[in-house]
Amino acid sequence: MDKSGGSESVRRLQIAVIGAGNPTHQTAELAEEVGRLIAERDGIVVCGGMQGASEAVCRGAKSAGGLTVGLIPGNAHKQANAYVQVAIPTGFGEARNALVVRAGEVVIALPGQSGTLSEIAFALIAGKSVISLGAWKRDLPLEMSETIYEVDRAEEAVALAFRLGV
Amino acid sequence: MDKSGGSESVRRLQIAVIGAGNPTHQTAELAEEVGRLIAERDGIVVCGGMQGASEAVCRGAKSAGGLTVGLIPGNAHKQANAYVQVAIPTGFGEARNALVVRAGEVVIALPGQSGTLSEIAFALIAGKSVISLGAWKRDLPLEMSETIYEVDRAEEAVALAFRLGV
Amino acid sequence: MDKSGGSESVRRLQIAVIGAGNPTHQTAELAEEVGRLIAERDGIVVCGGMQGASEAVCRGAKSAGGLTVGLIPGNAHKQANAYVQVAIPTGFGEARNALVVRAGEVVIALPGQSGTLSEIAFALIAGKSVISLGAWKRDLPLEMSETIYEVDRAEEAVALAFRLGV
Amino acid sequence: MDKSGGSESVRRLQIAVIGAGNPTHQTAELAEEVGRLIAERDGIVVCGGMQGASEAVCRGAKSAGGLTVGLIPGNAHKQANAYVQVAIPTGFGEARNALVVRAGEVVIALPGQSGTLSEIAFALIAGKSVISLGAWKRDLPLEMSETIYEVDRAEEAVALAFRLGV
Repeated sequence: MDKSGGSESVRRLQIAVIGAGNPTHQTAELAEEVGRLIAERDGIVVCGGMQGASEAVCRGAKSAGGLTVGLIPGNAHKQANAYVQVAIPTGFGEARNALVVRAGEVVIALPGQSGTLSEIAFALIAGKSVISLGAWKRDLPLEMSETIYEVDRAEEAVALAFRLGV
Repeated sequence: MDKSGGSESVRRLQIAVIGAGNPTHQTAELAEEVGRLIAERDGIVVCGGMQGASEAVCRGAKSAGGLTVGLIPGNAHKQANAYVQVAIPTGFGEARNALVVRAGEVVIALPGQSGTLSEIAFALIAGKSVISLGAWKRDLPLEMSETIYEVDRAEEAVALAFRLGV
Repeated sequence: MDKSGGSESVRRLQIAVIGAGNPTHQTAELAEEVGRLIAERDGIVVCGGMQGASEAVCRGAKSAGGLTVGLIPGNAHKQANAYVQVAIPTGFGEARNALVVRAGEVVIALPGQSGTLSEIAFALIAGKSVISLGAWKRDLPLEMSETIYEVDRAEEAVALAFRLGV
Repeated sequence: MDKSGGSESVRRLQIAVIGAGNPTHQTAELAEEVGRLIAERDGIVVCGGMQGASEAVCRGAKSAGGLTVGLIPGNAHKQANAYVQVAIPTGFGEARNALVVRAGEVVIALPGQSGTLSEIAFALIAGKSVISLGAWKRDLPLEMSETIYEVDRAEEAVALAFRLGV
């Protein structure tokens, strides 16, 4: 099967995966597993394209023959991590976070810092489902956390993403 | 004194004021007071330019002869609220939140929702001081709240903004 | 008269002035005159905020007590030229050219290079009137130049801008 | 061979293809041929993702099993044409033209209107090579056209793109 093409009428689901640029070992492993699982279901990984969780999720997806897209802050394609297959240099700095979220049809959030928080906030503004895999929910101001789904394992996160993203 | 001009070498301090699009009566009053106080100190109010806290802060600033700038999500100048004197139509939708924060040299945050949260997150990413006047701090994940100053009154917020913004 | 405030219901006309970053002496003089004339009619100058034509038009506007807004490519307010009163750091690099055009209700184009060309193109896309004061018209592909007005003198350009911008 | 993956260290060349939204029959055929040729050489087509030349180039690329990326002006993935495999909804309106150009490592320009002109201008600003396949060169102001290569046939355009893009 040609995973890059798919049939003419059905686009593959694009899942934005967000998380720390300097993740813990555990978060990086989780990200890699999420990437692998998305690829196995023929989804497309969309991310910020740089180091940390983005690199791990792309590595996982690529190991399973998947497709990875990185929307990077700078202007040079080569700044993307080595597992990004489609690099989108935005030149917007961290404001590209809004574009990462817009590029996903659903969002999986791993633990992160203010960058991840900005992406969750943008997802909520855009009315996109956010699946929190160890990221905040309870810690966020209450009204905001209503469309955030909390799950504990990568399998659950990816399965839910495909269920919500149809 | 010509408030619009100032001396050739000194730009007036630009303070981004963020908060809910549908604020409580109390938040709207606080926003208006913040706007008035910024104007009295010859600062420039920068905001999202639409309704709610943005409109209130602009109304307050304008009542004191100040200058107000609104970076709005749409393309039409007339979408800005009536107290915006310089309308910057971005056409970027809610992604313009990143631009609102970039336009301020310091940020005053009133209570809000996910839009306000995205702006606080961008301010933290950009390393800008955030002065929380009733917005979150304790509720945010801990590491992020370190550069957020909490104050209780509009006077404190504006005085601190000028102190930090120099 | 308080030029910064104006009446509550009437915003001042915002005119985007575009042109070379390294203009000829003649173009710089023209830009300065355009800025002065806009300010005398109580318009607001919007520009790219950096050197060259942008600096000249801001200098002219400021000499007449006008208001100047610069949408700059970088993130730091201080990168704006010394005559910019409201600096809008976009952090978008040269992609901010689209924002410069969006910020104007009408566009005056002085001679320039590819940056100016991108701005004229964006103005045409957005359906905004472009007043060419020595910039291209005849040289552009024909269909595009139809909404470009050619004038010879700064007075004509500014008078036409106010006529078209109402 | 897995065209979606490639080897871990070598990204496939990304070529931005730009042109009219309402092309002539001849331009659409040319676009389709360009798309097919890019795919046959294992390049990735990047475009504006909507109708006209974008749709034709994606159709051509997809017919040859290639990968197509569309950076679209709106917020909804489904607005992309049916041959776009990776949809990047920017929400930026026509300002996304700057992003289309940034996403390409080299640019092939087919005949177009002001949108295409804005993209050529941005490519020149960014110092990217522009290969004009029936688009302007001679008609542009002279200094700008220096880094524009003129070719007559789709084969030449694509061959040159791969030569310049290395």
